[in-house]
Amino acid sequence: MRTNLLMGKDEPLVVDKRSPMPMYYQIEEDLKQRMDTGEFRAGEMIPSERELSEHYDVSRMTVRQAMTNMVNDGYLYREKGKGTFVAEQKIEQPLQGMTSFTEDMKQRGMEASSRLIAFERQPATKEIAGKLALGEDADVFLVQRIRYADKKPMAVETTYLPASLLPELTEEIVQGSLYEYVENELNRTIEKATQMIEATVADDHQSKLLDVPEHSAVLLIERNSVLTDGTPFEVVKSAYRADRYKFISDIYR
Amino acid sequence: MRTNLLMGKDEPLVVDKRSPMPMYYQIEEDLKQRMDTGEFRAGEMIPSERELSEHYDVSRMTVRQAMTNMVNDGYLYREKGKGTFVAEQKIEQPLQGMTSFTEDMKQRGMEASSRLIAFERQPATKEIAGKLALGEDADVFLVQRIRYADKKPMAVETTYLPASLLPELTEEIVQGSLYEYVENELNRTIEKATQMIEATVADDHQSKLLDVPEHSAVLLIERNSVLTDGTPFEVVKSAYRADRYKFISDIYR
Repeated sequence: MRTNLLMGKDEPLVVDKRSPMPMYYQIEEDLKQRMDTGEFRAGEMIPSERELSEHYDVSRMTVRQAMTNMVNDGYLYREKGKGTFVAEQKIEQPLQGMTSFTEDMKQRGMEASSRLIAFERQPATKEIAGKLALGEDADVFLVQRIRYADKKPMAVETTYLPASLLPELTEEIVQGSLYEYVENELNRTIEKATQMIEATVADDHQSKLLDVPEHSAVLLIERNSVLTDGTPFEVVKSAYRADRYKFISDIYR
Repeated sequence: MRTNLLMGKDEPLVVDKRSPMPMYYQIEEDLKQRMDTGEFRAGEMIPSERELSEHYDVSRMTVRQAMTNMVNDGYLYREKGKGTFVAEQKIEQPLQGMTSFTEDMKQRGMEASSRLIAFERQPATKEIAGKLALGEDADVFLVQRIRYADKKPMAVETTYLPASLLPELTEEIVQGSLYEYVENELNRTIEKATQMIEATVADDHQSKLLDVPEHSAVLLIERNSVLTDGTPFEVVKSAYRADRYKFISDIYR
């Protein structure tokens, strides 16, 4: 389907050339607004660079800059030889509350699945031993999974767990709910976590696993969780597709 | 200064070629650990690709991948014609609490400054009018600043404020503390905000303002603040350098 709503002749010009905001930025804002109001729908093809440059009365370079930014920000996506399309809205992930990926997806009516790509027992690196308060030769389980929402890859998640705390851990257990296992089978209580959010660009490995172009923006979340008695319980390093995810929190003055 | 600590002949090999973790990832982890322990200090030059590939017994391609990732992640930086250096640690910004940039920097003993690049009164776009609950023709103040820590650019911050709420706003006021002005001069109380965190790659404009290479990762923070009576008070859109910033929060199960 092709959207041509932009091309109405009686629409006022939206780009103010005297504004301190760059023209491509004003175009981005206008297009985003049209997505918000539902005028542009997910999956629709947007008009060509030529059509947009005529509509906004700006150069094709300016239109191209706006389009590239919107692709990088996850509002649009390109299909080779076809055109540029309106992307689905990003998933809004609350930062409060320690829920699992499966719980989160269920809440928003999406189907969660994952693929285990590594499950190993190995000696902890110094960094992980430090974060899990383990001795020098202690073993950890390394669990690496790709997380899918509605069958599309969303994140690569790498979890480190102290082998001493979960000696009986198996692939089957990590394929289910790890938090439930800890709470119901081991009778330990997970209390809280410190979460760090960083951004980077996808390297070759991440871009393949996440099915995004190399150098796409990626959100890195590291979660260090502890039990109620203060024992460190896991280090989780996740790389989320920044074109599909945003994180939300409430803050108080 | 050149660090050559890596080259000790009696160090054990750190790259396990049978591990499911890519070799470049293992090298990154090893180098980060050496930074954590203070073995590699900010500003030091790291050994050459050739030296590192000999030390780790891997190809130069693998070393190059690790270096590129660490530059993208903000652990290392390159200086043309000179070499690759250890970057300063990222600034850890708590996500809880509604503090200002100036307050944040003071707390960690850094010198905060900013440069005003736009101050305009203009009609709100539909998006901003919606977020500030304004009527169609309402004016907003647009305030755009570059934020510096110890004289280095950290963020580009664009703030939209309802003109009806702050009719007397001037450049001088926004150069000081806006939150203090609202609370002490207008006698309104700021209560809370919703904060959204996204990631993208720097466009041409952002990369110039932030003094980073184009396509570097950038953290986008949008803050929508309200007063105690529920009146929306500001929309702030900030682009932070992802090589210098990480955001931290505590979460509870």
